[in-house]
Amino acid sequence: MTLRELQEQVRHFAQERDWEQFHDPKNLSMALAGEAGELLEIFQWLTPAQSTAVMDNATQAEAVRHELADVLAYLLRLADVLQVDLAAALRTKMDLNARRYPVDRARGRSNKYDAYEN
Amino acid sequence: MTLRELQEQVRHFAQERDWEQFHDPKNLSMALAGEAGELLEIFQWLTPAQSTAVMDNATQAEAVRHELADVLAYLLRLADVLQVDLAAALRTKMDLNARRYPVDRARGRSNKYDAYEN
Amino acid sequence: MTLRELQEQVRHFAQERDWEQFHDPKNLSMALAGEAGELLEIFQWLTPAQSTAVMDNATQAEAVRHELADVLAYLLRLADVLQVDLAAALRTKMDLNARRYPVDRARGRSNKYDAYEN
Amino acid sequence: MTLRELQEQVRHFAQERDWEQFHDPKNLSMALAGEAGELLEIFQWLTPAQSTAVMDNATQAEAVRHELADVLAYLLRLADVLQVDLAAALRTKMDLNARRYPVDRARGRSNKYDAYEN
Repeated sequence: MTLRELQEQVRHFAQERDWEQFHDPKNLSMALAGEAGELLEIFQWLTPAQSTAVMDNATQAEAVRHELADVLAYLLRLADVLQVDLAAALRTKMDLNARRYPVDRARGRSNKYDAYEN
Repeated sequence: MTLRELQEQVRHFAQERDWEQFHDPKNLSMALAGEAGELLEIFQWLTPAQSTAVMDNATQAEAVRHELADVLAYLLRLADVLQVDLAAALRTKMDLNARRYPVDRARGRSNKYDAYEN
Repeated sequence: MTLRELQEQVRHFAQERDWEQFHDPKNLSMALAGEAGELLEIFQWLTPAQSTAVMDNATQAEAVRHELADVLAYLLRLADVLQVDLAAALRTKMDLNARRYPVDRARGRSNKYDAYEN
Repeated sequence: MTLRELQEQVRHFAQERDWEQFHDPKNLSMALAGEAGELLEIFQWLTPAQSTAVMDNATQAEAVRHELADVLAYLLRLADVLQVDLAAALRTKMDLNARRYPVDRARGRSNKYDAYEN
């Protein structure tokens, strides 16, 4: 499945329900952040070790899959209405981050060389 | 590009830098929400109409592409460490939402039938 | 009511339930952001004008009051465990912002002079 | 300092800069969540133990105080434009939570009896 194919499915879902009228970038950025917040709520009281084992619990595992799907759906919608090619944007950003965080200087450091990116 | 191919690239980027040690699900859910928050900051003072035109401004357009890429990167990492198939999770969630928000009852309604999902 | 008095009430509530063990700063920052996300969900599909009138609807008004209270509660807890004086921190930050956004240059501009602060 | 006094200071700061035009509830909910996201970014790669010691580092401590102040400022503004009495809203919500999470059943449990509130 390519991002573009998934994007078309989510767009179709919105079109059928006449929901495109609500899907301006401002609103979609809020919906995306709201779903990211729901993901946080799953993990907020778990220790790091418990968070790593979260999929062992069937109820929590389903909640995780649903929230990840919701984040993805709004990310796809937002990129769609903005006509951003997500795969190209990721490629560009990773190239930028590769220069910002050269392997030899960034190795094993989370501060300053702030994880995947900043 | 499939989600899985993108996921491998992002995983490789983290591995090269020995950053996998920081990428437990709890931490990644925070990084994802942090990036979603940066997207919000682009749109927070824009009117809905201005948000729709955000890509007309080259500086803002680049910021948008970078933040969308960051959200995607952490979403891919999070799904990767949790071994969640994102495309399958989206399919399952959309089927669930199709039952929750039948076309005839959800048409044009954002409340209750809460947009793409709830 | 001072911030400090409210803080004591929230601390007492957590102590009675032996919840202080969960209230490290990392976890509380997640809980705070999760509640901020719930606030977003109230407003995400509303037009700016509808958002201004949100308190006219009794159900929405109650949801707004509850979410504002939740954000406040976690903000108070977080400042408490970090031993940050919130009123002093606000004073310091407003002084900094007053220099960053001088009245004559910031008037009526939301970009660059990014609203209340950056 | 009461919440009301702090609220007046933040309102005055916005009025002087003619920023009230940007401060509708929808926009302020985004700004609040954006600041909560910046707090997350401080803690995202820290272990729980490192998060507890965050104020020992002067640079991080200042960042924490600034972000807490920003969250408080937008929370005060949002309650102000909605004419919500924050202290009263907190009292009401804590009474509700006291019934939801009775001391004897909630003690030491973070799941289900979800920390301070849900």
